[in-house]
Amino acid sequence: MAMQNLVIDDMKVSAFKESAFVKPLSLEFKQNGKQRKWDMIKVHDSVIIVIFNINRQKLILVKQFRPAIYYSSVPAVDKENGTIDTSKYPPSLGITLEFCAGIVDKSKSLVETARDEVLEECGYDVPIDKIQKFKTVRAGVSTQGAYQTFFYVEVTDNMRINQGGGLVDEGEVIDVVEMSIPEAEAYAEALDNLSPPGFLFGLLWFLKNKSTTL
Amino acid sequence: MAMQNLVIDDMKVSAFKESAFVKPLSLEFKQNGKQRKWDMIKVHDSVIIVIFNINRQKLILVKQFRPAIYYSSVPAVDKENGTIDTSKYPPSLGITLEFCAGIVDKSKSLVETARDEVLEECGYDVPIDKIQKFKTVRAGVSTQGAYQTFFYVEVTDNMRINQGGGLVDEGEVIDVVEMSIPEAEAYAEALDNLSPPGFLFGLLWFLKNKSTTL
Repeated sequence: MAMQNLVIDDMKVSAFKESAFVKPLSLEFKQNGKQRKWDMIKVHDSVIIVIFNINRQKLILVKQFRPAIYYSSVPAVDKENGTIDTSKYPPSLGITLEFCAGIVDKSKSLVETARDEVLEECGYDVPIDKIQKFKTVRAGVSTQGAYQTFFYVEVTDNMRINQGGGLVDEGEVIDVVEMSIPEAEAYAEALDNLSPPGFLFGLLWFLKNKSTTL
Repeated sequence: MAMQNLVIDDMKVSAFKESAFVKPLSLEFKQNGKQRKWDMIKVHDSVIIVIFNINRQKLILVKQFRPAIYYSSVPAVDKENGTIDTSKYPPSLGITLEFCAGIVDKSKSLVETARDEVLEECGYDVPIDKIQKFKTVRAGVSTQGAYQTFFYVEVTDNMRINQGGGLVDEGEVIDVVEMSIPEAEAYAEALDNLSPPGFLFGLLWFLKNKSTTL
């Protein structure tokens, strides 16, 4: 499925009370004796995998429609009545460029979750011992605080056993895209990126630690 | 206020229905004709400021207690009854190392918000034309999607007019700390950081673009 053909329409916005994915919580506590209250949401931990194809000398990335990004791109005045005019705001406003990633919601280790995501999203079947952790940080320090772990793996063309694209049954629509090292350098230099901060970290980490040795 | 003396106790966890800071939303839409639903929270955009003191040759950073990070550090079994034993889990589990940052919630430009945060949190009064944007990304691609803009500013000792520390009236308790370039390199190399992904991006950006020219 090519992202340029993506059709998004009939969008409605409403407050929710219950969600399987987003659990609103309040923390009440005393800080140096003074009562405080902090609102947050409980979310899943996640893994992010920086994939480099050594045959093609390209980073393997994913493009996908992110509803929360799309929503945030629409000016307040055009969403306050509970609907968004999808003919005025094209889906491209919500299509991000990211590393392969996934939430940790199964009884698997982080590295196993990483391997599964590389296969599901990008179609590469990689041996688990080729996947190396290089960082754990904490995402959403203000309202989430989940663990986010970064892995690096080098792949070859013959590891690719399908086209990836995510789990269609779960509504995932993902394009696998490739980025050369010069393209990665230009993207890192750009003032605005439709990508998360962790993508920029992973990109600079790769350029600093890996691209010069390949 | 020194972070090592921070006392956190009497912590309770509960679901919330209303919050001034975290607005749960559901998006319902058709994606290529198929009905989808996505839960998210609406949060404020934010600014992050990489501050380098050229007299001291140190990055100027902040340490603070982040309730969401603390909560996420506690194993599920020890928080499922709605309280957290703060004598078993020390506050240090929730004390992050970050760049000066703030949410955009006033009728000010991004760069003015950045200047205000540098003064409030770190005590440096900097001319606005010294603050340079170097990146805008999108934080929380899955559930938030807010704009996060990074700035860089070089400061001098004589710009420091107070000790910073945040807005006590709003419950902010912030330690201003300094980090040398070798310390920054070591932190970036470490496998685990009690910092958000945007901190690691900002750190690598600084080391790549600024530390070699100073």
